[in-house]
Amino acid sequence: MTKDKLIECHNRIKPFIHDTPIIKSDLVNEMIGSKIYFKCDNFQKMGAFKMRGATNAIMQLSNIQKKKGVVTHSSGNFAQALSLGAKGLNVPAYIVMPESAAKVKKEAVKSYKGILFECKSSLEDREIKASEIIREKGATFIHPSNDINVILGQGTACKELLEKHPNLDFVFVPVGGGGLIAGTALATKYFGKNCKVIGGEPFEVDDAYRSLKSGKIEINLTTNTIADGLKTQLGDVNFPIIKNNVEKIIRVTEKEIISSMRLIWERLKIVCEPSCAVALAALIREKENFENKNIGIIISGGNVDLSKLPF
Amino acid sequence: MTKDKLIECHNRIKPFIHDTPIIKSDLVNEMIGSKIYFKCDNFQKMGAFKMRGATNAIMQLSNIQKKKGVVTHSSGNFAQALSLGAKGLNVPAYIVMPESAAKVKKEAVKSYKGILFECKSSLEDREIKASEIIREKGATFIHPSNDINVILGQGTACKELLEKHPNLDFVFVPVGGGGLIAGTALATKYFGKNCKVIGGEPFEVDDAYRSLKSGKIEINLTTNTIADGLKTQLGDVNFPIIKNNVEKIIRVTEKEIISSMRLIWERLKIVCEPSCAVALAALIREKENFENKNIGIIISGGNVDLSKLPF
Repeated sequence: MTKDKLIECHNRIKPFIHDTPIIKSDLVNEMIGSKIYFKCDNFQKMGAFKMRGATNAIMQLSNIQKKKGVVTHSSGNFAQALSLGAKGLNVPAYIVMPESAAKVKKEAVKSYKGILFECKSSLEDREIKASEIIREKGATFIHPSNDINVILGQGTACKELLEKHPNLDFVFVPVGGGGLIAGTALATKYFGKNCKVIGGEPFEVDDAYRSLKSGKIEINLTTNTIADGLKTQLGDVNFPIIKNNVEKIIRVTEKEIISSMRLIWERLKIVCEPSCAVALAALIREKENFENKNIGIIISGGNVDLSKLPF
Repeated sequence: MTKDKLIECHNRIKPFIHDTPIIKSDLVNEMIGSKIYFKCDNFQKMGAFKMRGATNAIMQLSNIQKKKGVVTHSSGNFAQALSLGAKGLNVPAYIVMPESAAKVKKEAVKSYKGILFECKSSLEDREIKASEIIREKGATFIHPSNDINVILGQGTACKELLEKHPNLDFVFVPVGGGGLIAGTALATKYFGKNCKVIGGEPFEVDDAYRSLKSGKIEINLTTNTIADGLKTQLGDVNFPIIKNNVEKIIRVTEKEIISSMRLIWERLKIVCEPSCAVALAALIREKENFENKNIGIIISGGNVDLSKLPF
């Protein structure tokens, strides 16, 4: 990995993504005691940072590969991101989703012209279905988080943030599959001035916290969290980057996630997913350690079911 | 009224307000068939456009008047706007609110250092209380919407919008007390290129619609709407401006308001009040008449009780 690779990646995807706004709130700063810059990737195309990595990964394929299409299995934002990214580049996108996935998510994939394949719920079933498609269509599998081109793409959110606010002391991100935090770690390494990356993770899915402690990839023992984007596991591509470049991971309770989410909605007046609120919750939990610091927080997505809000 | 007055007003209040962002959504544009620019005054200080008019009205007082303070009666955003505007200018703000007002609104006024006076609910009680304060403190009464300095201040939202998008064909705003629509009408007259103003109003509080029909100020017969910011009446200062400069008023149902609000939250990923959604609902109701037009919509505020959402 080099700084140039991240610059090339950003230049490559720029025409296909939004340079999302950065917002701040005097009131939130007063409450927390630091100066916070929220990078709003809830305003990204399809509503999440995943658009960045998906677009970069597709663009790195050969013309023959592009013609045959891409495939992923995801019930979340990456399914939509790969569909929309592929649509903009005239590439077929085959999306494997469990039958049990929310109807609204299936509809979103279809609205972005993703070609939906349904399967049973287990990870094994999803992988079997994806393998079938790879065999039949010759399509290329793109992993939502454990792929270096996806990781580089996700890092461009933090790169944009640091270009406008180069003096950040810390950047906080939520940790799910590890793509965002690994990309953010690379961006701060190449574009920050001694800027450190902190991950936020629910106690209920603290695989990354435990992985950093043990030095090897740990799996989740429970997935009982409102932060549904963070239930996934780290992978062998992103974990070494995380291990070498992330300062620490702070775990938070479900109650802290919901109250941080409410703070973002009420004070910043933006719609964000519970997963994003985990990063702010981590800062609030240990706010004494970050007093008067310049802090970036990546608001990772805004695709939320309004009929199932926790408040 | 002259163009210069609006320019002076804008220059006067600029240091105390945000030049709020303008956002758009390809998906919403496709759905509606026009090109829409949302001017996000939900991101304004204290969360609503009312900060603009309140600040301008306070700044127009003499030094002696400023020392003695300002007073208003409001249970909504103007109470907060006058409190915060006055705080920034070191002016005491006396706010008369009905005892029955939501606790969160009373707390918001206090957090902005407004001096709260509670009274019974009727308009008469509020006016008696305000008169007492005027007599005792020598404070100046500032009306939330029927005051030319307030109206000019509210017009600066549309002025900012037109400075960035000078070719708008229409600007849609919600109609409550008439301050925003009157200010917007002046801004389009002075800064637009044949840009017309359309008001959105709930069927349940259609006083402005009927007033434009009859040519005189009509009162509301019902106030049974979710758009709680729009229950107020037009006044003798703003009505002549509205009568002479507003193209038409489109009435919408409660169901249309809620579904437009949901569209804004889901697609624009921003938190807005039901009142704002009335402007978009009006456009959607008659979208055939606005095909391929350039349209501005003022998102008037974002102060909403998250525990009482309609979805």
